[in-house]
Amino acid sequence: MSKPVIDVERFWKTIERSAEIGGGRPGGLSRLALSDSDRQVRDEFIEWCRAAGLNTRIDGVGNIFARRAGSDNSLPPVVLGSHLDTQVNGGRFDGIAGVLGALEVCRALDTANHRTRRPLEIVNWTNEEGGRFSPPMVGSGCFVGTYGLQWTRDRRDDDGKSIGEELARIGYLGDQPASPHAFDCYFEFHIEQGPVLDRDGTQVGVVTGGYSSTGTLVEFRGETAHTGPWPMERRRNALVAAARLLVAVDDIGWDFAGSGGKGTAARLVAWPNKPGILSDWAQTVCDVRHPDPASAAVMAERVRRAIGEAAARANCTAEVLDTWTWGGRIFADELVDLVRAASLRRGYRTQDILSQAGHDAYMVAHHSPTAMIFAPCRNGITHNNLELCTREDLAPGLDVLLDVALTRADR
Amino acid sequence: MSKPVIDVERFWKTIERSAEIGGGRPGGLSRLALSDSDRQVRDEFIEWCRAAGLNTRIDGVGNIFARRAGSDNSLPPVVLGSHLDTQVNGGRFDGIAGVLGALEVCRALDTANHRTRRPLEIVNWTNEEGGRFSPPMVGSGCFVGTYGLQWTRDRRDDDGKSIGEELARIGYLGDQPASPHAFDCYFEFHIEQGPVLDRDGTQVGVVTGGYSSTGTLVEFRGETAHTGPWPMERRRNALVAAARLLVAVDDIGWDFAGSGGKGTAARLVAWPNKPGILSDWAQTVCDVRHPDPASAAVMAERVRRAIGEAAARANCTAEVLDTWTWGGRIFADELVDLVRAASLRRGYRTQDILSQAGHDAYMVAHHSPTAMIFAPCRNGITHNNLELCTREDLAPGLDVLLDVALTRADR
Repeated sequence: MSKPVIDVERFWKTIERSAEIGGGRPGGLSRLALSDSDRQVRDEFIEWCRAAGLNTRIDGVGNIFARRAGSDNSLPPVVLGSHLDTQVNGGRFDGIAGVLGALEVCRALDTANHRTRRPLEIVNWTNEEGGRFSPPMVGSGCFVGTYGLQWTRDRRDDDGKSIGEELARIGYLGDQPASPHAFDCYFEFHIEQGPVLDRDGTQVGVVTGGYSSTGTLVEFRGETAHTGPWPMERRRNALVAAARLLVAVDDIGWDFAGSGGKGTAARLVAWPNKPGILSDWAQTVCDVRHPDPASAAVMAERVRRAIGEAAARANCTAEVLDTWTWGGRIFADELVDLVRAASLRRGYRTQDILSQAGHDAYMVAHHSPTAMIFAPCRNGITHNNLELCTREDLAPGLDVLLDVALTRADR
Repeated sequence: MSKPVIDVERFWKTIERSAEIGGGRPGGLSRLALSDSDRQVRDEFIEWCRAAGLNTRIDGVGNIFARRAGSDNSLPPVVLGSHLDTQVNGGRFDGIAGVLGALEVCRALDTANHRTRRPLEIVNWTNEEGGRFSPPMVGSGCFVGTYGLQWTRDRRDDDGKSIGEELARIGYLGDQPASPHAFDCYFEFHIEQGPVLDRDGTQVGVVTGGYSSTGTLVEFRGETAHTGPWPMERRRNALVAAARLLVAVDDIGWDFAGSGGKGTAARLVAWPNKPGILSDWAQTVCDVRHPDPASAAVMAERVRRAIGEAAARANCTAEVLDTWTWGGRIFADELVDLVRAASLRRGYRTQDILSQAGHDAYMVAHHSPTAMIFAPCRNGITHNNLELCTREDLAPGLDVLLDVALTRADR
C-alpha cells in the first residue's frame, strides 16, 4: 500500500473528455440540466464510476451518488461532489472540477490500494445552475428537505417541460427516495468564480462562508392598452414597472460596490411584450449580495422598497412570488480548519475567502458538516465560454481535497 | 334604384360573426396575423365578398382585394379597407370595423341596385398590428413599396416562422404581384383607439393627420458573467442597458404628457435572461409620439441620447437596428374636407382629430389620396379585450363612409 497521490494528467484527461460533451461557444459548454448532453455526461460519469469500482445509485430528483466502500460500511460516508450541468454560456470547470476531482480522489485511492475506514461518496447534484429550471441548487435543496420532492419535479423550463418529465426522458428519474442519508461530512471543491485568488497569486482558497445574498422573484400586473393614444396617466405598463425595478437594483449594487456589494438584474420577461401594445404582466429576478450581513440586509430592504416604488410609478401591482437568501458563516469550523491546515502543510499559498456565488454546499450545510475548497480561475471569468483554468490552477486544491477526505475517512 | 343606406343590423351581425373567430380573453379576440383563426376569418370574409358579387384576389403578401365592378372599369377604383388581424389581447372592432364597414357599403349599394361609375374595392391588409410579425403595417407597406416583397416575406415571428411560410401554410400566398395598382383614393374607417371622441360626445372624427411618431429597435451587447462574484465595475449586463433605456423613454413620455406626448416601452428581450448569469444581448422596442412635430422631434432626440447613455451606464454597446417614423399632415385635404362635409351634412357631431395610432392609411397615403374616418370607442380602451363600441357608436361613421365612397365613385 503506497501513499495515495493525485494524478493530474488523469484528472485533466477526464476534464477534457467532459468538455467534449455539450459544446457551446468556442472553448465553453452549454450543458443545461437534463438536456441530451447532460444525459450523455451523466452516462459517461457513471461509466467512470463503475470502472473505479464505485456503486452508483440515483435518487428521485436525479442526484447521482457513487459509493466507494470503506472497511466499516456501517459508518456514514465522507461525501465529495458538485455538479456537471452548466449555464447556457458556461465553462468547462464550474462544478465539473468538483465532481471529477472527487472521482480523481477515488482513482488515487485505488491506485494506492488504499481502503478507507469510512465509505467515500461522490455526488453529482441535479440542476445546480438554475440555467434551465429555477431555482438553482434544486437537487441538493430537495435532498436536504428545503424543497419537496413533487415541488422540485414540477419546476418547469421556459418551454413548459418539468424536471420530472425531463428526468424520465433522459432516464435519470431514480427510484431512491430523495431524502437525505447520513453524511460524515461534505467537501465541495470548486473554482472561485471571482478574481481574488488569481489576482493575489493564491493557490488554495479556504472558504469560510458566503456573501449574504437575497434573491427575489417579483411579478408585476398592469393592463394592456394601445401604445399610441392611451394617455400616460392611465397607463399600467408592467414592462415599465419591471424595468424600473431592475434599474433600481443596479443602482443599489453601485451604491455598495465600494465595499464589495453587488446588485444584479438577472431576468425580465413580459407579456405580450410586443410593439403596439402595453404589457399587462412582467416578472423579474434580481439579487443583491454583500460580504457584510448588515450591509446585505440594508441592500435587501432597499430592494423591497424599490419593488413598491417601481410598481407605483407604473401604476401596477407587485407581488413577491419568491425570495431566497443564502450565505453567512454556514460551514463547519472544524472542517474549514482542516482545509486550511492541509493546504499549509502542503506549502500552498493559502487565504481565507468568502464565496460570492451560491453552491450546493450551502444546501448540504443544513444537513451535515460542510466545507469548500476554492481554486483560482483566470481573471475570475466564469459563466462565460472564456472561463479558464490550467492543471496548475487546479492541482493544489485537488491535493487538499484528497488530504481532507483521507483524514476524515480514515479516522 | 333607391338611395343606398347602411343596414346597421346587417353590419352588426357580420361583426358578431367575426367576433366568434379567434376568441381571446372574455369579449376580446386574439386573432394574430396568419394564424389559423386569421385564415378562418379570411375564408369567411371571402365568402361574404363572393355572396356580394365581388371579385377577390390575393397578392404576394396576402393582402385581399375584393372588387365591385363600376360602369366604367377602366377607371381606378375607390378603395375602402383596414385589417382583420388583432393583437394577442385585442378587441373585436380595431381594424375589423373598417373592413366589414366597407363590405356593408357594397351590400348597401347592392340592396339599392346602385352601380357606381368607378369600381369599388375592399382591402384587408396583412399583419397591420405587428402583434406577431414586426414591423406593423407590413402588408400595406409592401404594397406601396416601402418594404420589398422578399424582405416582407422573410419577417419572422418569435418562433422563427416567416410571413412567407405562414401565408403558404394558410393558403394566402397569392399569385398577384404585391405591387400597387392605381387607386382613385383610399378611405379607412376605424375606431379612434383613444378617449377624445367618446369624452366629447363626438360621433364622427375627421382625421386630419397623425401624431408625429418615432419608433426605435435597439440592440445592446455586453458580456455574460456570474451574477455573484463579478465586480460591478466589470459588468456588461445588456439587460441593465435595455432597462435603463425603457425607463428613460417612459420618463420622456411623462415630461411631455402635459401637451399630449407619449413615450412607450413596448418590448424587451434578453439572452440568456436567466438567474445566475448576466445577459450579453438585449433588444428593445420603444416609441415616442406627440401632436406637435417640433416637440416630437425633441422627444426623438432625447431617445437617441438615452440610448447612448443607457449603454454607457451598463458598459455595453448599442446599435439602432431600425427606426420608423410616421404621422404628420399626410392625408389629402380634398378628401378630409369631403369627410367633414359629409358628416356635417348628416348632422353628426363632428370634430377634427389627429390619429395617435399608426394605420395602414399612413402607408397608403404614400400611394394615393387618402383619408380616415374615426368612430368613438368607450373610454378609448383598445388593444384590450374590454374594447367596446355599440351600433350607435359606429353607425354615423359608416354613413359617412358610404357618402364619401359614393361621391368619389360616382364622379
